[in-house]
Order: sequence, then C-alpha cells, then structure tokens
Amino acid sequence: MKIITAKRAGFCFGVKRAIDITFDIAKENRGHIIYTLGPLIHNPQVIDDMKSKGIHPVDIDKINDNANIKALIIRTHGIPCELYDSISANGFRIIDATCPFVKKAQHYAKLLKESGYQVIILGDINHPEVRGLMSYAGKDVMVLNGDTPLPKLKSKVGVVVQTTQPVEALKKALSDIIEHIKEIKVYNTICNSTALRLEETEYMAKKVDVMLVVGGKNSANTTQLANLCRSLNVITYHIETATELEYGWFIGIDTVGITAGASTPKWLIKEVKKRIKDIGGRPSNGNRKQ
Amino acid sequence: MKIITAKRAGFCFGVKRAIDITFDIAKENRGHIIYTLGPLIHNPQVIDDMKSKGIHPVDIDKINDNANIKALIIRTHGIPCELYDSISANGFRIIDATCPFVKKAQHYAKLLKESGYQVIILGDINHPEVRGLMSYAGKDVMVLNGDTPLPKLKSKVGVVVQTTQPVEALKKALSDIIEHIKEIKVYNTICNSTALRLEETEYMAKKVDVMLVVGGKNSANTTQLANLCRSLNVITYHIETATELEYGWFIGIDTVGITAGASTPKWLIKEVKKRIKDIGGRPSNGNRKQ
Repeated sequence: MKIITAKRAGFCFGVKRAIDITFDIAKENRGHIIYTLGPLIHNPQVIDDMKSKGIHPVDIDKINDNANIKALIIRTHGIPCELYDSISANGFRIIDATCPFVKKAQHYAKLLKESGYQVIILGDINHPEVRGLMSYAGKDVMVLNGDTPLPKLKSKVGVVVQTTQPVEALKKALSDIIEHIKEIKVYNTICNSTALRLEETEYMAKKVDVMLVVGGKNSANTTQLANLCRSLNVITYHIETATELEYGWFIGIDTVGITAGASTPKWLIKEVKKRIKDIGGRPSNGNRKQ
Repeated sequence: MKIITAKRAGFCFGVKRAIDITFDIAKENRGHIIYTLGPLIHNPQVIDDMKSKGIHPVDIDKINDNANIKALIIRTHGIPCELYDSISANGFRIIDATCPFVKKAQHYAKLLKESGYQVIILGDINHPEVRGLMSYAGKDVMVLNGDTPLPKLKSKVGVVVQTTQPVEALKKALSDIIEHIKEIKVYNTICNSTALRLEETEYMAKKVDVMLVVGGKNSANTTQLANLCRSLNVITYHIETATELEYGWFIGIDTVGITAGASTPKWLIKEVKKRIKDIGGRPSNGNRKQ
C-alpha cells in the first residue's frame, strides 16, 4: 500500500511561531505556570503536552481570580481589542502570539471602519478569530458565511476575510454583494498557507483511495480539509491520533493520502504514518477496532 | 397577436440629456451648423434627423481645418482627457454632454490611479467610453472583457466598469481577479438603467415567442440586448427601423416582445409597434421581404 503525505500538512507559520514563543516564555519562567488565554491551538494532544510542561489554558473570566499569573499568552486567533485593553489594565505581562496575518486582518478591519466603510467579515461568527476581528470593525459590522442570506448593506462596504476561509467562499460573497452596492474595498486576508494546503489536499484526494485528515476535532481548518475531501467523494477519516486507525479501512486499498490541519504537530502525523505501515496489507476480520 | 413593449425601452437619462443639450445649442445658434465630436449617439436614424436640423458629427482630425465651428458638443460616451485639453486649447466653445454616470466613472478611474491602484477597466477596449476612461486611469491601466485571459496584476488593483456592462461580467471578473491579489477596490459604475433594461428584457424574452430589439446596429448596448435574448433561445431580430420587419416572422406567433437600446428614440419604437399591428395575423407566403 502506498502512503502519500501532503507537504503542507501540519503547523503553519503562525502556529509554529506561537508555540515557539510560548516555550521560550516557559523556559524563561521555569518552575512557574504559564497561562495561555484559551487553548493555544485547536489540538487536544498538543494542549495536553503543554500542560505537562507547565503551560495551561485559562478562561478569560478566571483571570481576575488568579494572582499567580506570571505571563498571559494571546493565541494565534487574536482577541477583541476591548479585551486586550482590559487585561492590559490588570497589569499582567501579556505576550501577544496573535498570528501576524490575523493582526493584518485586524488592522484592515480598523482601517476600513475609519475610512467610513461598513465592514463585512467573511467567516464563522463563532470562531475566536472572527470575534476578535469584529471588535475592530465598528458597530455596523456584519459577519457573512456561505449560508447567510445577504442583509441590507450600505452603499460603501469593506471586506476582510477570516484567514482560514477558502477562496471560493470569498468569490461567492463578492458575487452576491457586488450588484447591491456602489463601492467595495476588499482585503483578501486569506492566508496563503491555508489556500495552498486546501489546493494540495484537493489534488491529493483526487488521486488516492482513502484520505486521512489528522488534527483536532475542534479545529475548524482541519474539519474544512475533511469536508473538502468528502465533497470529492473520496473515503475520508478525520482522526486526532494514530490510535483511532482501524484495520478495516485499508483492506483492498492501494493508495492512502495523509493531510493535516494547521494546528497538527509533525509527531502526530508521523505516528499515523508509522501505524498505517504497521497494519497496511495485513489481513483483517473487518472493521474490528484495534 | 399580443405585443408587449418594455417599459425601459429607449433613451436613457444620459442620452436624453445629451440630445436636449444639443437641440438647445442648435436653437441658440439657429442658422449655424453645430458639430458633435463623432456621432452624438449610436443610432443612424437620430443622426440623420439631426443632420437635417443642422447638427453634424465631425471627426476629431477634421476639427483644426474647420474654422466655422460655432460649438463643439462632447457626446455621452465622453472623451480622453488629453483630447479635452487639446480641443480646449483651440478656443472652440465646448459643450460637454458626457453622461454624468460616465463622468463619475472617469472621476473614479482618476481617484484610483491617484491612490496608487493599478486600474482595471471592465469593458470593450474599442468602445469610446472605455477609450475615455483609459485616459484617466494611468499608464498601468488594463482593459478586461469576458474573453481576455487575466494578465499579471499588481497586488493592489482598482476596478471601474463601462457603464453599459452587464453585472454578470463584473461578477466573473471579480471572481477571476480576487484570488491573485491582496487588495481590490471596486467602483460598480454599471448604470442602473442598463441593469434594469437588461433585467426587464430577460424577463420578457422568457415569456414571448419572438423578441424584436430596436436600435442602431452600431450600438453596443442594443447588440448586448439582442445577444441576451438569443442566449435565452428566443427567436430574436435586431432591427433599426420598421421597414426591416418581415411578414414571415409573425406567422403562428402569439406574443411579440419589443425592447430597445439606450440610444433608440421613442418614435422608432412606435413605428415598429404600429407596423407589427398592421401586418400581424395576416397570412403570408413565407419570408417575403415587404
């Protein structure tokens, strides 16, 4: 059985940077607990590993009860500007690990608002990145995703995009908006690494018999990869770890593709690859869990 | 046989305004020939009527030989800014009948250029409106239409649209451009009356057995209406005058729709309607020309 692993599987630039920053701070403060404002990334295995090294996620409403906070790390998704101001006022040492591409999107949302545009954010209103962006976009802000019916818009609108959205969503939104307005300014803030990962995954999914998408079940971009594969009618499994693999998945299969979300570490991908090699080609009695 | 005439058939606001301006100038200068810089509108019958009233189109390269020019009228499509400057320097009395919506598009093209955008004009590079717009858009300007393969673009592009383009063309262009750039500012300069005329024509074409599109064969927007009808698989005739109507077109036909371009006068539409009534329902020996 042939196993192909996507070149762009795993940590993107922003996630790698945030993890490096966090471990540096943990090293500086050895013996103290380091807090991240919410889970640093959407991957339970990485979060567990961090906890074992003294790095703990903390809820925003627990901050004020916690006098022991040495350093508070803002994760890649960023936070609303009002929250930034309020935690700054608390006197914590804040380390901002917001992805630079998300920072840019926040800056553009603010710029559009200040230039008199009604800001539209294309993305998932429940995603922390979008909650952060909204705070920069002014009171007229609207969040659109593929399913949102187009609301009544002002004649001059500005668009920023959640960095992990697929470009097709942006195309559709522009197509919907353009006939209703006179002026639109769009910052295409889709992160290049997201676009390339989706592209590579699509290419791979068309060539293989089975796709394995490795990453947090709570990771939006990993789930997006899995949904993309399924939409291409290839058998797709979204797993977090190698322990979820089943013998039965590989019976009569020639080629397996592996991709992974931006928050999936290399070691999880390697474990999956190794496990498939171990079980690959072996006869199986069906879908027995291992 | 039922005859339905589109409410929005015929002169748009800009054309009506230009014709009113021109006749006012002709009245002021009774006895003198009034010149328009090229044919005032793309309708041979209106131009012939104007000639009979002392209003003549003149070629730009003939201007300097003509000391008798009392007034020079700039038509709805507008002209390149360099041309405006050079004819102003000649000391003619210039009457600018550029459609206010085209003026706005020229202003936006200039604004985009001055704000550092690479300007893209969506439209027909051979149309005088687009030639005018280009002059305001700076040296990096590019003209795109549906058939143009997308050229290499700068990262920051600004778009203005020939006022008579269909919104579908704008949607397609944005969809093509957006994945290659980081920032785009679009002025949707499509004239509302064009959009509504296309919409009404489409609605009508789906309901009738035959569509008659009345207007200059040299009129881009009239040709666009005819092409739209043909794309909807309804039998379509693009005619300039009632004399082109043929008996055979109406045999066995229940409903005829009439629409007309922005440069078609009401009297031409009325003549067509009257002529169909005269011949409608009468037996015919086929496609005999009348």
